[in-house]
Amino acid sequence: MTYCLAIQVRRGLVFASDSRTNAGVDNIGTFSKMHLFERPGDRILVVLTAGNLAVSQTVIHRLRREFATHSGGLNDAADVYAAADYLGAISRAEQDRHAEVLARDGVSVETSFIIGGQVTDASPELCLVYPQGNYIAATAENPYLQMGETKYGKPILDRIIDADTTLDNAARCALVSLDSTIRANISVGPPLDLAIYEADSLAAPRRLTLGQDNPLYLGIQQGWNAGLKQAFVGLPRFEWEE
Amino acid sequence: MTYCLAIQVRRGLVFASDSRTNAGVDNIGTFSKMHLFERPGDRILVVLTAGNLAVSQTVIHRLRREFATHSGGLNDAADVYAAADYLGAISRAEQDRHAEVLARDGVSVETSFIIGGQVTDASPELCLVYPQGNYIAATAENPYLQMGETKYGKPILDRIIDADTTLDNAARCALVSLDSTIRANISVGPPLDLAIYEADSLAAPRRLTLGQDNPLYLGIQQGWNAGLKQAFVGLPRFEWEE
Repeated sequence: MTYCLAIQVRRGLVFASDSRTNAGVDNIGTFSKMHLFERPGDRILVVLTAGNLAVSQTVIHRLRREFATHSGGLNDAADVYAAADYLGAISRAEQDRHAEVLARDGVSVETSFIIGGQVTDASPELCLVYPQGNYIAATAENPYLQMGETKYGKPILDRIIDADTTLDNAARCALVSLDSTIRANISVGPPLDLAIYEADSLAAPRRLTLGQDNPLYLGIQQGWNAGLKQAFVGLPRFEWEE
Repeated sequence: MTYCLAIQVRRGLVFASDSRTNAGVDNIGTFSKMHLFERPGDRILVVLTAGNLAVSQTVIHRLRREFATHSGGLNDAADVYAAADYLGAISRAEQDRHAEVLARDGVSVETSFIIGGQVTDASPELCLVYPQGNYIAATAENPYLQMGETKYGKPILDRIIDADTTLDNAARCALVSLDSTIRANISVGPPLDLAIYEADSLAAPRRLTLGQDNPLYLGIQQGWNAGLKQAFVGLPRFEWEE
C-alpha cells in the first residue's frame, strides 16, 4: 500500500508521501514515491506515485530522460493540466503494454499519480491522474488530493485545511495525516518525503525526508498524541457523570 | 453503509451504531441497528447489524420470536460465544436462502453482526460475527470491534481505548469515532444509538439515542473540533519557522 497526498493553498503547494512498498506482507520495500522535475524560473513539477511499482518507475524514467533532453514530455507542457494529461497518456500506454500478462498472473497493473507545481506564468495547480489516464484537479473547495490508503488520514485534513492555511501549517497537517495512517496500516511507513512549493516562486521546493527517528517527526507524533488525549479529556460529560 | 462498534473494557461493554441505511445514494433510510435482548438477572445481549437489511431484519425477527418464548435460540446459549455461534448459523442460513437470486441481481447478501453482553455467571464478552457465520472475540489487546465504514473512526479508538478505560470514557470515545466517520462518509448518519453495560450487573444497559440536534452530541462535535485545532496549534515548528 501507499499513502500520498498533496495540498493546494493560496500560498502554494505541499506534497507528502510515505515510502513503503509491498508485494504481499512478506515482501516489503522502501522506495521514495516523490519525484521532482525542476527548472527554476521556468517550471517546477512534483510527481507522486502509487500502485504498480514497475509501471510507475518506467513512467518516471521516461519523464526523466525527456526532461534531461529539454524537449518533449513535461518540457512542452504549457501548464500543470497539460503535464497531467501527458503523464496520464504515457501511464495508460505503459499499463496497457503489461495489462494482459499481469491480469493472467492476478497482479494489478493500476497506477495513479499526483502531479503539481507551476509552469512559467500559468497558475500553480495540483492534479490526480487516475489509472485510466484522465485526471481531476484540486480546487478551493477541495484543496487536497490523496492516493492509496486515504481514509485514516482524511479527518484531520478536513478539519484543518482551507485555502488560507499557511504553507507550513499545511505541511505539518500532511505529516499528522501521514502519521495517523502509519499508526493504522502497517503497509504505510517512513521515511516520509515532504516538499513545499511557494506559489509564483518558480524556485525549487523546500524538501525534507523524515526517518522514523527524526526529532521533528517524533515531536509531531508525541505532540499530536498528547494533544488528542487532552482534547478528549475536555469533552462534555454525560448528565449522570456530574 | 453503516458504522457500528463495540468496546470491551474491564468495567463493561459499550455498543454504538449509526442508523443510516442506503441502497444507492437515492435511496436513504433510517433504521436502528441496535437490538437488545434483556432478561435482567439471567442474560443481557446486545446485537448490532451491518450489511443486507432484509437478512439482518429477518434474523433479528427470528431471535425476537424465540426470545419471547423463553426457549431455544439465545435463551439456551451458555455464554456470549454460544450466542455468537447460534447467530452466525442462522445468519448464514438466511443468506444462503437468498444468495443465488440476489447474486443474479447484483445485490450483496453479506450481513455481519456484533453481539455482546453477559449470560448468567459467564464473563462479559464481545464477538464479531462474519457473513460466513464464524466469529472473532474482542480481547484485552484488541478491546474493540467494528463493522462497516471502519477506517475514519479507528485512529481515535487506538489512542484512547485500553482495558482500564472507564465505561463513560469508552462511550464518549465511541461517539467521537462515530462523529469522525459521519463527517467523512455521507452514508453514515445520525441518530446514534448508544448502550452501556456494566460488567456483572446483568442489568439492562444504559441507553441513549442522540439525534442530529442533541445538545450532548453537538457539544462533543464542537468540543472535539476545537480540541483538535488546539492540539494542532501546539505541534512543534519546522526549524525555519523559529
